[in-house]
Amino acid sequence: MSASKWLNKVRWDEQGLVPVIAQEASSNDVLMFAWMNRDALTKTVELGEAVYWSRSRKKLWHKGEESGHIQKVVEIRLDCDEDVVLLKIEQVDSIACHTGRHSCFFQKFEGSVSDGDWQAVDPVLKDPETIYK
Amino acid sequence: MSASKWLNKVRWDEQGLVPVIAQEASSNDVLMFAWMNRDALTKTVELGEAVYWSRSRKKLWHKGEESGHIQKVVEIRLDCDEDVVLLKIEQVDSIACHTGRHSCFFQKFEGSVSDGDWQAVDPVLKDPETIYK
Repeated sequence: MSASKWLNKVRWDEQGLVPVIAQEASSNDVLMFAWMNRDALTKTVELGEAVYWSRSRKKLWHKGEESGHIQKVVEIRLDCDEDVVLLKIEQVDSIACHTGRHSCFFQKFEGSVSDGDWQAVDPVLKDPETIYK
Repeated sequence: MSASKWLNKVRWDEQGLVPVIAQEASSNDVLMFAWMNRDALTKTVELGEAVYWSRSRKKLWHKGEESGHIQKVVEIRLDCDEDVVLLKIEQVDSIACHTGRHSCFFQKFEGSVSDGDWQAVDPVLKDPETIYK
């Protein structure tokens, strides 16, 4: 089927998945990392909103379906090895993380190999209890 | 050993790896995606330069060791689930991709589900033959 030519170009891993980086189009901030299978990528293109594959729940996950924190697709990129997708998105409410933060990458490494640790350095914008009722 | 407390906080996968996103600190551009094991992350912190685990060559890969396109570490972040690392770097020569491009994510999706395709939209900055002699 010719409709799947672009889907076949993606090098899906042995579980039929591809890693996906979600980047905010306006700020270029990296907001989260997730996975997609063929259905998820197809639905993402159809809807114009990010649909991932939840490895823990083993089902499609329309990002924001519970929280309202939908990701509107601005651009989809594929890397040189065709095995990683970069999704440029507009993040509704500017909150991507389930902790109520802008980005999931809020823990910063501080120190050295011998005394290092990860410190939460970004603010919680919204109490998760009010996001997930 | 207390020195490995921060390393133990990372949720390494069943192969002992963690996905890593390399982002240019100055532009916020996402340049590449790779993997690290404990040794790679330790060496990255020690050196202050990106050291990945090459899954194809099954060995540590000091990025730029052949090409000269070293990545100087500006900041290291960990996500909310502690299973993805975001590396903010300065990219030497502004070229991260083995094709001689700035970013590995140079293929853009154009079209719809039925007629879509990936198009190379970013320029080659340096001929790969002159990078890898």
